[in-house]
Amino acid sequence: MRVGSKYYRSIEASGDHTYVKIIDQTLIPYEFKIIHLNTLHDVVRAIKLMQVRGAPLIGISAAYGFALSMNLDSSDKSLDESKELLMNSRPTAVNLFWSINQIYDSLKKEMPNQRRELSWVLANKLASEDIKNNISIGFHGYNLFKENNKKTINFLTHCNAGWLATVDHGTALSPIFKLANEGFDVHVWVDETRPRNQGLSLTAWELSHQKIKHTVITDNAGGLLMQEGLVDFVIVGADRIGLDGQVCNKIGTYLKAVVAKENNIPFYVAAPLNTIDRNFSVDSHNFEIECRDESEIMTMKGRDKSGNVIEINLGNSPAYNPAFDITPKEYVTKIICEKGVFDTGEIKDIINP
Amino acid sequence: MRVGSKYYRSIEASGDHTYVKIIDQTLIPYEFKIIHLNTLHDVVRAIKLMQVRGAPLIGISAAYGFALSMNLDSSDKSLDESKELLMNSRPTAVNLFWSINQIYDSLKKEMPNQRRELSWVLANKLASEDIKNNISIGFHGYNLFKENNKKTINFLTHCNAGWLATVDHGTALSPIFKLANEGFDVHVWVDETRPRNQGLSLTAWELSHQKIKHTVITDNAGGLLMQEGLVDFVIVGADRIGLDGQVCNKIGTYLKAVVAKENNIPFYVAAPLNTIDRNFSVDSHNFEIECRDESEIMTMKGRDKSGNVIEINLGNSPAYNPAFDITPKEYVTKIICEKGVFDTGEIKDIINP
Repeated sequence: MRVGSKYYRSIEASGDHTYVKIIDQTLIPYEFKIIHLNTLHDVVRAIKLMQVRGAPLIGISAAYGFALSMNLDSSDKSLDESKELLMNSRPTAVNLFWSINQIYDSLKKEMPNQRRELSWVLANKLASEDIKNNISIGFHGYNLFKENNKKTINFLTHCNAGWLATVDHGTALSPIFKLANEGFDVHVWVDETRPRNQGLSLTAWELSHQKIKHTVITDNAGGLLMQEGLVDFVIVGADRIGLDGQVCNKIGTYLKAVVAKENNIPFYVAAPLNTIDRNFSVDSHNFEIECRDESEIMTMKGRDKSGNVIEINLGNSPAYNPAFDITPKEYVTKIICEKGVFDTGEIKDIINP
Repeated sequence: MRVGSKYYRSIEASGDHTYVKIIDQTLIPYEFKIIHLNTLHDVVRAIKLMQVRGAPLIGISAAYGFALSMNLDSSDKSLDESKELLMNSRPTAVNLFWSINQIYDSLKKEMPNQRRELSWVLANKLASEDIKNNISIGFHGYNLFKENNKKTINFLTHCNAGWLATVDHGTALSPIFKLANEGFDVHVWVDETRPRNQGLSLTAWELSHQKIKHTVITDNAGGLLMQEGLVDFVIVGADRIGLDGQVCNKIGTYLKAVVAKENNIPFYVAAPLNTIDRNFSVDSHNFEIECRDESEIMTMKGRDKSGNVIEINLGNSPAYNPAFDITPKEYVTKIICEKGVFDTGEIKDIINP
């Protein structure tokens, strides 16, 4: 997407396949900085520190992590160790494990001396597919929302499922970008998304660069806006979708989904099919809900009076910081994926046609 | 309540009736500072700046505002002007208007030379009644919650309805203080309550001074905790309660109430009867929902590395900052007031026996 007059992807391989360029997302909106990841360890650290975040993007980052690792050592041992390190980088987004397993299995079948080149081919292919999927999500979402008769279409979104959460175009924001491009009058209510403020810092930043009308609200405000008829659609991304249609996404998603249903406001989840986890169902949570450090609640980053970006401390109370929650399928109106717009009950059939 | 080894009230008249002492709540938890209000204008400013906040406390503050004003000039003109200024200090908490009208009507009936002394008598009386009411709320809430069979009773509360929101004891926290005093094992999940962080800054501070177990969470996390069975009761205060039982309270209350019901978790509202507004019903919102400055969302106060309390800026996006929302009666399990614990349908009968 465009930042100023230039187009960027959230992640990109160097032409000579010696490093990977990412946008350091911990610095936005204060600084737009491209950094280079030169090793697998750089990739793992970038995922852990959330310099790259968003379920699709961390999946692609892991793919490039293998490639950087194979540059140095393409042995079975190195391949296994790379898998292990990447598997433990973050726990919730299933796209990460999908990508790791796919790349690992493909490389494992090859002779070590074939792995280096192949790993870059595979990672670049996954990145291209991600973009293609997101463009399709945008297209299907556009067709869904364009029938709306409102003068202004008001969306509410939580966290960031924009182009920064993917390689390009985004998931939840992809239909919004397309609607705006096609001349529709769109406005987005942006949940600030505590504790890390991805809405305030990333989504608002993306929308302002695409010149799309938006307003930041606290995570507390969405219910009132829904009651007052100021929200036409809620649209979010996903870190994991069960075969039965339940959705694991950023903490707070569930509150918005329940209250959207209570107010008869459609609640859409936009995500590529690789977000679907065959083993995740209402009866089995086969993954841990990531609990992040309480310092994320008790500190905050911003600019001081001199314009320097600093971190302040908000207190020393005990805090608890789960990063995701699970929205049962009954609150999910439709899933928008690269194949179209589906009821939660249809997911099984899309995956196992 | 106790802070360190001393007991304090949130507001107190000086012995010679020349000024009023308050705790400056904008400084907590960074500093505990008693400041003196010497004039009506000081009181109005303290209400506007939220140095005093919480529905019961701003009602009592207004009463003392009249008293400080009568000290200087007890004419009809001064009385009318004082009323006007106080009426416009904040729009949502009905206790403010209840208190203003009560004091104004009583003073208006008297000759100007009687008003000075009477105004202090009346304000002190309202302050004493507030404490009495809150002790009763604590008692009735205690009887309600003590029957719980859990080893630890887990509450979730939003914003601050503790002793700082009243003259003493608090509303929503009053039963919790009593349970803890009586030896029950109590734990409180404290919503940080963006944008002004009254939960993180005030409620957590109160609970730590009373040595009650508590954990700060983001406003996004409560839904997950309810799903996981980690919340036994939700309890909040109120800025206004309709005769039909709907509750206007801090923005975000509605989200928690809906999701509590969805998870079969009782949702209690604790407030004195002067919070009830006969003219507030599902068909008529006879008051504006206060919209505060967007800088409350886009700035944050805390300590820098050197320990100095400073304010940082989080960005320059457009923001929208409504401060309250309305929870329809169907999500309110019971109202706890000084007369006991009631269904929302019983409110009319308590008010008009």
